[in-house]
Amino acid sequence: MKEPLRGKVSRRVFLKSVAVGLIGGQRGIMGNFEANREAFLTDVRGCPFVAFLPLSLTQVRLLDGFWHQKLVLLQEVTIPTQYERLRETGRLDNFLYAAGKLDHTTGLQWLAPDSDVYKWLEALSWSLTFDPRPSLVALADEVIGLIAGAQDSNGYLHTLFNREKKKERWTNLRDLHELYCAGHLMQAAVAHRRVTGSDALLNVAVRLADHINQTFGPNGKPEPDGHPEVEMALVELFRETKKPEYLSLAQFFLDQRGKGLLGGFPNIQDHLPFRQLREMTGHAVRALYLNCGAADIYGHTGEKALMDALLHMWRNMTERRMYVTGGLGARHEGETFGRDYELPSQTAYAETCAAVAGILWAWRMMLLTGSPSYADVLETILYNGALSGIGLDGQSYFYVNPLSDRGGHRRQPFYPCACCPPNIARLIPMVPGMLYGVSDNTIWVHFFAASQTTVSMPTGDITILQETNYPWSGDIQFRLELEQPTSFTFKIRIPAWTPSAQIFVNDHPSLSPRPGEYAQITREWRSGDSVMLSLEMKPQLLASHPWAESISGKVSLRRGPIIYCWEQVDNPGADVWSIYLSPDTPLQEQKGDGILSGIVLLKGQGWALPKGNHQPLYQPAGSLRSHLRPVSVTAVPYFAWANRTAGPMTVWLPLKP
Amino acid sequence: MKEPLRGKVSRRVFLKSVAVGLIGGQRGIMGNFEANREAFLTDVRGCPFVAFLPLSLTQVRLLDGFWHQKLVLLQEVTIPTQYERLRETGRLDNFLYAAGKLDHTTGLQWLAPDSDVYKWLEALSWSLTFDPRPSLVALADEVIGLIAGAQDSNGYLHTLFNREKKKERWTNLRDLHELYCAGHLMQAAVAHRRVTGSDALLNVAVRLADHINQTFGPNGKPEPDGHPEVEMALVELFRETKKPEYLSLAQFFLDQRGKGLLGGFPNIQDHLPFRQLREMTGHAVRALYLNCGAADIYGHTGEKALMDALLHMWRNMTERRMYVTGGLGARHEGETFGRDYELPSQTAYAETCAAVAGILWAWRMMLLTGSPSYADVLETILYNGALSGIGLDGQSYFYVNPLSDRGGHRRQPFYPCACCPPNIARLIPMVPGMLYGVSDNTIWVHFFAASQTTVSMPTGDITILQETNYPWSGDIQFRLELEQPTSFTFKIRIPAWTPSAQIFVNDHPSLSPRPGEYAQITREWRSGDSVMLSLEMKPQLLASHPWAESISGKVSLRRGPIIYCWEQVDNPGADVWSIYLSPDTPLQEQKGDGILSGIVLLKGQGWALPKGNHQPLYQPAGSLRSHLRPVSVTAVPYFAWANRTAGPMTVWLPLKP
Repeated sequence: MKEPLRGKVSRRVFLKSVAVGLIGGQRGIMGNFEANREAFLTDVRGCPFVAFLPLSLTQVRLLDGFWHQKLVLLQEVTIPTQYERLRETGRLDNFLYAAGKLDHTTGLQWLAPDSDVYKWLEALSWSLTFDPRPSLVALADEVIGLIAGAQDSNGYLHTLFNREKKKERWTNLRDLHELYCAGHLMQAAVAHRRVTGSDALLNVAVRLADHINQTFGPNGKPEPDGHPEVEMALVELFRETKKPEYLSLAQFFLDQRGKGLLGGFPNIQDHLPFRQLREMTGHAVRALYLNCGAADIYGHTGEKALMDALLHMWRNMTERRMYVTGGLGARHEGETFGRDYELPSQTAYAETCAAVAGILWAWRMMLLTGSPSYADVLETILYNGALSGIGLDGQSYFYVNPLSDRGGHRRQPFYPCACCPPNIARLIPMVPGMLYGVSDNTIWVHFFAASQTTVSMPTGDITILQETNYPWSGDIQFRLELEQPTSFTFKIRIPAWTPSAQIFVNDHPSLSPRPGEYAQITREWRSGDSVMLSLEMKPQLLASHPWAESISGKVSLRRGPIIYCWEQVDNPGADVWSIYLSPDTPLQEQKGDGILSGIVLLKGQGWALPKGNHQPLYQPAGSLRSHLRPVSVTAVPYFAWANRTAGPMTVWLPLKP
Repeated sequence: MKEPLRGKVSRRVFLKSVAVGLIGGQRGIMGNFEANREAFLTDVRGCPFVAFLPLSLTQVRLLDGFWHQKLVLLQEVTIPTQYERLRETGRLDNFLYAAGKLDHTTGLQWLAPDSDVYKWLEALSWSLTFDPRPSLVALADEVIGLIAGAQDSNGYLHTLFNREKKKERWTNLRDLHELYCAGHLMQAAVAHRRVTGSDALLNVAVRLADHINQTFGPNGKPEPDGHPEVEMALVELFRETKKPEYLSLAQFFLDQRGKGLLGGFPNIQDHLPFRQLREMTGHAVRALYLNCGAADIYGHTGEKALMDALLHMWRNMTERRMYVTGGLGARHEGETFGRDYELPSQTAYAETCAAVAGILWAWRMMLLTGSPSYADVLETILYNGALSGIGLDGQSYFYVNPLSDRGGHRRQPFYPCACCPPNIARLIPMVPGMLYGVSDNTIWVHFFAASQTTVSMPTGDITILQETNYPWSGDIQFRLELEQPTSFTFKIRIPAWTPSAQIFVNDHPSLSPRPGEYAQITREWRSGDSVMLSLEMKPQLLASHPWAESISGKVSLRRGPIIYCWEQVDNPGADVWSIYLSPDTPLQEQKGDGILSGIVLLKGQGWALPKGNHQPLYQPAGSLRSHLRPVSVTAVPYFAWANRTAGPMTVWLPLKP
């Protein structure tokens, strides 16, 4: 199905928009902020061990399309409603309580209520690069005021331990989440500073980081954090402040693991020194955040043992312990990775936070290696296991993302332990910062989204207009505007999922790009040049490795980067749990409507047991086959499930016997 | 493959053997025992709510064939080596210690060491009906002496609580296993009494039962047992002694469940009153033993609510919570049944004890209803999930019976918690007692085994010679000898697994029997009459209900009552975990050799990923298919696995995409 290119603007409008800054939200009224601030999602400038530099979020403007819609929804619905949830649940009051300005708060529950506020602030901050809505800017300032007011004079900050529980500070690194919350504060502060230029939150983070640095270290407390996060936050704070002690402290925390200081539990990655880890073990979010921190440290040290451990774990995860949706963490018990190939569908945990964490790790591996395989995994997680964590309404969420369900697993407006909603919220505005990269005389395109981007080169700015209806269409057109003709390499990722791709430069067929690699076009580029990339996006049935017990003998469905699922609401002819597919089932594309408007559905032919036909637990395969009747089956993107009438859903269907 | 009938003896020899009692072990020298003792496995004479009476074990003599070999091995290897294990592990010393005759014992570990001794004694006792070996008779007497010597003057008996822990008696019905051990003592005592006529052990059991009856009840302690077993034992002790208080006490224990007296835990079936149970919940062995007790009580009371609960649970188990091998209990955690359709292969628990317990329950349901479906399930468990619990060497065991493995799960000579070895040992000599039944003018044939059986009818004895090489052949010939022509119904079970069956009476085709029913032939029978039953035994691939996530999209293999598996040692061409089958794979029979001599193997054609061919976790189904190469695949009976070189094994193979 060829679709008209989305985000398409006439060249004349395009150039004018670039000039006056009209494209991409309300960029034109970013009056509050310094012009041309550099707001890097990950600031690896000066890191010796990276393959490319990302572009500042301020250099990439989304145009109408998939991610533009997500950002609008984020700012109009997600961030305001999450603010309400934070307020209602006492999470904001906690800061007033900690400051002594309230006698009571209902929010001092769970272990890390502060982190939900910080992640929400981070989401809000990054989103301001899309559209600096004054209401959001003001909301951030208000909350930053609350946070700053709650900080202890010595720099300590965690609302659970600011008043009557002061004596418990830093007494239980294994279970309490003080360093974890501190890390999220640092990340919010870095984001807010980079986007707005304000030091308001950064100063709070720095004072807390200094307090931590005085408390922990070779001459202080020895324990690392039971829930990693602070490691990558400290590296980013180092990058923002240039204070080398933060990098050292991050490394200290990493090095202290595996010494039994937290009890030696595998579930919190304390069973082995980090450099000896080879498998993804234990609590999924913790393991993934820890790897992010180690990757960040590697960017500065280039220590081979760190990268060896990361590479082993990456292989273990992507070859044996990752759902087809990119979901991570098989088990409810302990929220952990399971054994190799342990990937149950109905009882999958696949926490939304783990998907976000997986993306953050994949992004760091991309930065360190420039290898396209990391981008492939990142894209899979992003469009499936991560996006499934937020409803199409922008204000309902999944904590757990099973791959099959009988209809009881429904989206919630918030969770008592609310880590996931603000985590998926902060991920969405990061996406534009991951699209492009630059290295010596090279511009990298990692991901596809209708957008307009400006890259500064020694010969002047290069503006790239990316026109596409991705992920629904595999056609992506790049139009380049240059101040003067410039030789450089345009390096475009060809996703591994495509069976074939074509590239046209100025309408002439170019090289035959190979899936799973970066296509490189080196030439002298001139203003007006265009590159057309066409990725074959035929629906494909996927099979698993035979050792994956829950899914071998079954197939799932992919089109482009999107993994599909069968929901009951689209399949009145049979219970979707009783449908079988043939491996050669023809599949047609179909436009979604209503809440699925703009989404491509996939329609095909299956075989089903008639409803109400109770089959025995075991019977001859031929006998089962004799009960099957042809039935039309319709699949929707997995990320879009559970937004309509509740009912059975499955990502995998068994092969017809 | 037509096989010559096993267990075939010439008519002349047959009649002579009957006369002098030579067939079936060394029956001729049963001088120790009363002649013609009635040794009923389950003595339901006088129970108003049963469909048939089983035959006494002394009426059924196995002839050379599958079960004859098992009984010989049991007596020559299993019982003597288990005695050694019981001795080495201090389980026998425990009784001397309890009697004050030893200062120390190493056996006071785990919760129920005595029960292992009792179950072994039960195995030995029943086996004496096959062959009253004097050495075994003496061994039983020796151990009975130990047991009797340890009994407290008040009748109490449990070696863990006979000395320093006396105060702990009956203080923790939930976790300790005092009533459970008492139940196994009663069952051993009943078996020993029925087979030998001796009261030596029965007196011990009666004193203990009387002590329990004084301690528990409406005017005593109110708790039921945390591990059911005593209920069915008390009913059988009632049947043996005719003391009605034992039946009342069994019913009391049943009625006390679900009142929260044990904490209300579902894992020990205390969450609901028994009559409200509808699903198989919690610890599998406990649930199944409890149901046995309830079924036994029903036999005397006919209380509809009991049968309703049993029927609901039976349906729940056989339609949703039973492995294709008849294995019961999906989860390692708590040794429990899982959710509906939760039937993982690699992590299956399927404890050998649960298989034995499942057979004991199915046997009781057969007795109560006369329905062939219970016999079908019993046979499946017996030949697969239960027999897999003991090695072909007769002295190595499985506690856990997974349906797939990488080669690490190997048989052990014993277990610290050694419930399973003596449990499978006591099951084997019970089998002859389940083959036949009688009711008004009807002889029932439930199961097939080369055997010679005498049934007393008002008109005189009827002797039935059953000649067969079952379970390897589906041909079963019955030859009848009667004192005078007699009219009765010969009722033969036609297993549900057979696609078709034929019956010939005196070589003339008889009625067309329907699988899953009892075929009934009513006529005047005369000496020399023969009935030939021919069951089609073509290998069949089985498919599961689509909701069984771990196995839908896969097939398993059955021939007759035998479920097969693929072991690495027979399949050098590929890793058996990387083999796919087509639903129309042709299958040929092949004779086993070496340790598998006499066993039918099944050879077919599969498709495999080449060894060392590392596949990605997910790929297009067509891409996976392109890697598959034809490979010859050989399957062995599941019960025979893990007796040769260790390696991967699986019961289910995925369908070729």
